[in-house]
Amino acid sequence: MPLDSKRREDMEDMIAPMTTPASRTAVGSVGTVATEFLDLPQPLALDCGRELYPIRIAYETYGTLSPARDNAVLVCHALSGDAHAAGFAPTAVAASTRDGFRADERDAGSGRGLGWWDGMIGPGKAFDTDRFFVVSSNLLGGCRGTTGPSSTNPATGRPYGSGFPVITVADMVRAERALLSELGITRLAAVAGGSLGGMQALEWAVQYGDHVEAIVAIASTHALHPQGIAWNAIARNAITADPDWQGGHYHGTGRAPTSGMGVARMVGHITYLSAASLNDKFGRRLQFADDIRYLLTEPEFEVESYLRHQADSFVKRFDANTYLYTSRALSYFDLSRQHGGGQLAHALRNVSARTLLIAFSSDWLYPPAGSAELAAALRAAGKEVEFHVIDAPYGHDCFLLEEARQTPMIRQFLAR
Amino acid sequence: MPLDSKRREDMEDMIAPMTTPASRTAVGSVGTVATEFLDLPQPLALDCGRELYPIRIAYETYGTLSPARDNAVLVCHALSGDAHAAGFAPTAVAASTRDGFRADERDAGSGRGLGWWDGMIGPGKAFDTDRFFVVSSNLLGGCRGTTGPSSTNPATGRPYGSGFPVITVADMVRAERALLSELGITRLAAVAGGSLGGMQALEWAVQYGDHVEAIVAIASTHALHPQGIAWNAIARNAITADPDWQGGHYHGTGRAPTSGMGVARMVGHITYLSAASLNDKFGRRLQFADDIRYLLTEPEFEVESYLRHQADSFVKRFDANTYLYTSRALSYFDLSRQHGGGQLAHALRNVSARTLLIAFSSDWLYPPAGSAELAAALRAAGKEVEFHVIDAPYGHDCFLLEEARQTPMIRQFLAR
Repeated sequence: MPLDSKRREDMEDMIAPMTTPASRTAVGSVGTVATEFLDLPQPLALDCGRELYPIRIAYETYGTLSPARDNAVLVCHALSGDAHAAGFAPTAVAASTRDGFRADERDAGSGRGLGWWDGMIGPGKAFDTDRFFVVSSNLLGGCRGTTGPSSTNPATGRPYGSGFPVITVADMVRAERALLSELGITRLAAVAGGSLGGMQALEWAVQYGDHVEAIVAIASTHALHPQGIAWNAIARNAITADPDWQGGHYHGTGRAPTSGMGVARMVGHITYLSAASLNDKFGRRLQFADDIRYLLTEPEFEVESYLRHQADSFVKRFDANTYLYTSRALSYFDLSRQHGGGQLAHALRNVSARTLLIAFSSDWLYPPAGSAELAAALRAAGKEVEFHVIDAPYGHDCFLLEEARQTPMIRQFLAR
Repeated sequence: MPLDSKRREDMEDMIAPMTTPASRTAVGSVGTVATEFLDLPQPLALDCGRELYPIRIAYETYGTLSPARDNAVLVCHALSGDAHAAGFAPTAVAASTRDGFRADERDAGSGRGLGWWDGMIGPGKAFDTDRFFVVSSNLLGGCRGTTGPSSTNPATGRPYGSGFPVITVADMVRAERALLSELGITRLAAVAGGSLGGMQALEWAVQYGDHVEAIVAIASTHALHPQGIAWNAIARNAITADPDWQGGHYHGTGRAPTSGMGVARMVGHITYLSAASLNDKFGRRLQFADDIRYLLTEPEFEVESYLRHQADSFVKRFDANTYLYTSRALSYFDLSRQHGGGQLAHALRNVSARTLLIAFSSDWLYPPAGSAELAAALRAAGKEVEFHVIDAPYGHDCFLLEEARQTPMIRQFLAR
């Protein structure tokens, strides 16, 4: 397979001097890992009508591919994730559990430290690497190794910026399929993911019905509801309203739309949490001693300070254009419109994969009702579906936090 | 009383050529009205420790003050409202019912057309002007006639901008009390309002227990929950992140933070609606024909276009600094902290007013649980309280939309 040896070497340079900390490699960890890179041999035809080439995909693998090549599980990440889903990636600043939500550190997709779904992938875990060969790639349009708007446009020799083609979840899935093909995998034991990752899993089941045996879609939906579309539109508006966005061509200018990205992240972050979890964690506690200080622009409440922290850390590690494209793709996603002429059951006609849907009671961004609608449509279409609603308080972030309760559901589902 | 004759004349110039359209003066309307202006004779001592002077208050009155001066009802507006609560104010562009939510036009507080609570104030309405003398003023820090950050700072001869003192709901109430005192009213038959307006009503009951006979607090709370604090902080961050905010001193520069204000309004607007009402109104309907056009920054969904419209119309009529100060004040508001040493029941000890609380089942910004907590605390403190939850789908905006169902509750409550 075509590997990017230069970037591999760079990565190995970073890895070499480190010894994996013992605390990071407890039983059940896939251990120290490194992201690999693969250049697709062919252009990819996109939904928008354009072709994209070249395309590099960043990915990681955990476990061993069976001789029959029949034990591969593709794990798909959410909006701000990356290929580093499991194990420990050495880093100068090790991932820590600050006093924020644990999910903040991982869904973060820092690409270093512990993988964003480390609790779910490894020996004996939900996606058991003693049994499965797990593949995790950075999605098309990403900013963490896979070709995206910050990549060089061969036509101009400069970063695509907003000249990158508008992509869809189906395009992401086509890129994943091309990657797997290069890895010699034509059939998947399962595709799994939460949120946007779950959308990719659903798209796999619909688009490549004969090539997927099972899908696990967690805290996801067949079509985001209009309030979710609105939140995503607001986040994108915050980015494009920032003059430093510069029409999308900020690369190389020394300025990036960090203010707008910060606001976008704040909006996103609050939609990932439940009102109850914010209340439990912060209440109305003040920043300073026991009273307000009459500050117009600086945080007075702990929750305000937390939002600033979330914004500041996110803008350092994530590309604004990737945020725009990915947010656009997940808003577009609509199995009925894309595949069913407006009929969900019709869109699902070619699904042959068994389906596991998990939703969380407090998730108001991807509410259980959406998963229930999908489960009903699958059943109506005569498909095999298992649907669980986990009663948990952390909102959409549950898919990253409630590992212990998801694990037996997923293990049992995959064992069948 | 001191009146601002210059501005009155300006207003009358606008009014003169118009004939009130018949459709606007149906039975039950207070008819054509004009905003009046009053300069407070004394400086106002603020919670932050500063004194504010001069202070001009914009207000309107409807009905007739009784000889005993015992029939005055103060109506307090929400974040983006103004003194024009009822009747018809002539205007070049008459208020219309575009195909948006009706509340968009009125909570708008355009200061013209129909008042923002016209369905509730007038002969035979909830606040019956055949019986009550209704006073409605623009809140302290406002941008629609009352002194606020866009007013001239006498110390500099220039607009205060962010040099305006940080104000509280209690400060707003002090200003309202000073206005009423100038109008010769020392005791109120009732104080009423929704959202931030309800906070003012509650503050009146606590701060001036002996001067208020009844309060009506609708879709309001004794303390905003942390998710609400977060939404407000995000909106403020969007404004202050806009370079055109210029540290709050944008007046006279030819630039104003309209982009940031637009994003702030989008955030606010979605929090005022329920997910279900967005679904009913927009679903996932597309802007163009029946398919997406792969546009990165332009609206593709109707709900995205609606958000842009909301943002564009809001920035034309509202001052960004007033948004900041008012948002700050409503986040601070916390009866327990301000008056009870952390104990809500203790904060309510001096309340002598009868209290009517109304909440709406789908209001997730000011949820019924908050009103229920307040009702319980009032009862525990031995106060007279009536509490209704109206089952309605429009979210926080219900307080502007569900007039028909609020009216009998309010009329009966005030009749006792």
